[in-house]
Amino acid sequence: MSNPVLVEVTRGNMVESRHRGMVVAVDGDGNELFSLGEADAAVFPRSACKAMQALPLIESGAAAAYRFGAKELALACSSHSGEPEHVALAAEMLAAAGRDVGALECGAHWSSDQATLISQARSLEKPSALHNNCSGKHAGFICACCHSGTEVRGYIGYDHPIQQEIRGVMEDLTGAILARDNCGVDGCSIPTYAVPLKGLAHGFAKMATGAGLGAERARASKRLIDACMAEPFYVAGTKRACTRLMNTAPGRIFAKTGAEGVFCAAIPEKGIGIAIKCEDGTTRAAEAMVAATLARFFADEPQVHAGLMAQANHSMHNWNRIHVGNARVTEAFIA
Amino acid sequence: MSNPVLVEVTRGNMVESRHRGMVVAVDGDGNELFSLGEADAAVFPRSACKAMQALPLIESGAAAAYRFGAKELALACSSHSGEPEHVALAAEMLAAAGRDVGALECGAHWSSDQATLISQARSLEKPSALHNNCSGKHAGFICACCHSGTEVRGYIGYDHPIQQEIRGVMEDLTGAILARDNCGVDGCSIPTYAVPLKGLAHGFAKMATGAGLGAERARASKRLIDACMAEPFYVAGTKRACTRLMNTAPGRIFAKTGAEGVFCAAIPEKGIGIAIKCEDGTTRAAEAMVAATLARFFADEPQVHAGLMAQANHSMHNWNRIHVGNARVTEAFIA
Repeated sequence: MSNPVLVEVTRGNMVESRHRGMVVAVDGDGNELFSLGEADAAVFPRSACKAMQALPLIESGAAAAYRFGAKELALACSSHSGEPEHVALAAEMLAAAGRDVGALECGAHWSSDQATLISQARSLEKPSALHNNCSGKHAGFICACCHSGTEVRGYIGYDHPIQQEIRGVMEDLTGAILARDNCGVDGCSIPTYAVPLKGLAHGFAKMATGAGLGAERARASKRLIDACMAEPFYVAGTKRACTRLMNTAPGRIFAKTGAEGVFCAAIPEKGIGIAIKCEDGTTRAAEAMVAATLARFFADEPQVHAGLMAQANHSMHNWNRIHVGNARVTEAFIA
Repeated sequence: MSNPVLVEVTRGNMVESRHRGMVVAVDGDGNELFSLGEADAAVFPRSACKAMQALPLIESGAAAAYRFGAKELALACSSHSGEPEHVALAAEMLAAAGRDVGALECGAHWSSDQATLISQARSLEKPSALHNNCSGKHAGFICACCHSGTEVRGYIGYDHPIQQEIRGVMEDLTGAILARDNCGVDGCSIPTYAVPLKGLAHGFAKMATGAGLGAERARASKRLIDACMAEPFYVAGTKRACTRLMNTAPGRIFAKTGAEGVFCAAIPEKGIGIAIKCEDGTTRAAEAMVAATLARFFADEPQVHAGLMAQANHSMHNWNRIHVGNARVTEAFIA
């Protein structure tokens, strides 16, 4: 694999660290609009494809039956920080289906956001599965199972009906074949499937435009993307990149991070889907790459462009708030 | 810059992320014993060179005057986790020189170790400069100043006598010229100077062997390296890589991490100095690289070799403790 350097981190007058990566943006028909590096390489989308995994929640009729609005749907697509609002809403979603935290099979962890972790440490003996960043997605799975009368227990397994259904949804969206040989286990224990980066971008372009999708899936996709853009806090949380990116152009940008340096995004009004993978799996670099890629498509809107580029290129400060260097995207994004 | 892939992170049957890097091991005379990637590239050693920066503490006579033992000297070379023992000892070092936390100019931060942070959050309103991972190093600077009658205030500045002295020490050890044009500001606000990776490795080989050093500097170097190897907990902390590496062969391996994927090490009995830089600045990869490099020099000791390789190659588990993949060094280390 040979990918170009896309992000540099400087200190003083010198480049201290470098991040390589791959980027691809396509339209609803799969035409490539921009790419850097190996856009056809197979990558695990991890949490970046949660909006795809949430489609059964709507298509099963569960979201309508439980009267879920934009906040609940955004949380079903989220990697949240475990802030009180996230935890409470995940519990409410489970309660709507007559379940509670005991049904969650995602495991428990403290928040990865330092301010939230400090708050959790002061109020909790230990975190529960509701605090897991994936609890909204898992609550969505459980609601879909309950509504359709499927046994909930074991819903994280490769052969469980909900995971089979998700496999079908993701094959429809990405055009890739998902099977045991490209399957790994995700942090929250559900299957994750390595798919070509370009297929992932195409899947988000299809979700954003409805191109090539059945009418019901196109409507459900639009509803999820719209919910995330309407409630960016419920997709991530305070000071998080997804929330910040979506707030840069409210209602016009969808963005979702995944572990190991993956980022997916869409610009529905322009019919564009985007997927990014930082080769070394570093979040700071994936965030800069997706911001710079989004910015390319807002060149004619100076305010949005500047807001996105401020997330692609930013200064870094030390514990005494002294400026020590910068994180910046390379010229590869300008070509 | 073109460096080989030295660490791979897998998931399922596939490689999910890749880390490139540069490695060099030399003897006391600077002869190259092993290298990978661009060993002559200039890198900021960051905290990996703290043992070099602690030499004035001994050479000034301050360590003797204040009766510092191995624990204090190890803490002066440390990037500690802010555990209670670290914080208490940093305060004692300052008290020996008649100073307190108010003299520290390193800034304050919560522990980067999750368990310690949770404990700190439950017992502190906010952290002080004593909790900064660099507080031992800064206490050492302050003690050196106090003993020699140098004004303490402003000791983090490029032109302050203690930083001038450190510049001279590091030029002697690394053979590089340190000046404004290769100077950056470190996380704790002192100057950090980009030097060729091979010069950094040579500096640690010289510290470990005394080769090419004056008698006083050779003795002081041996005392610092011995102190770190005798008290690995005070160099880092619970579950930390430096502590774990040194505990693998007690009294025989010196190892010190730095930010942005730097690692330095020495094997005094073999007269070897080692320096590592992960191109993308990722700690998990630098830890694997230094463990695999150290292991090369213990090929004839199966137990030590296996202990080091278990740190170079290890399995990864998710929140439910399910095995999801592995971090492993590449074949580059076998050649």
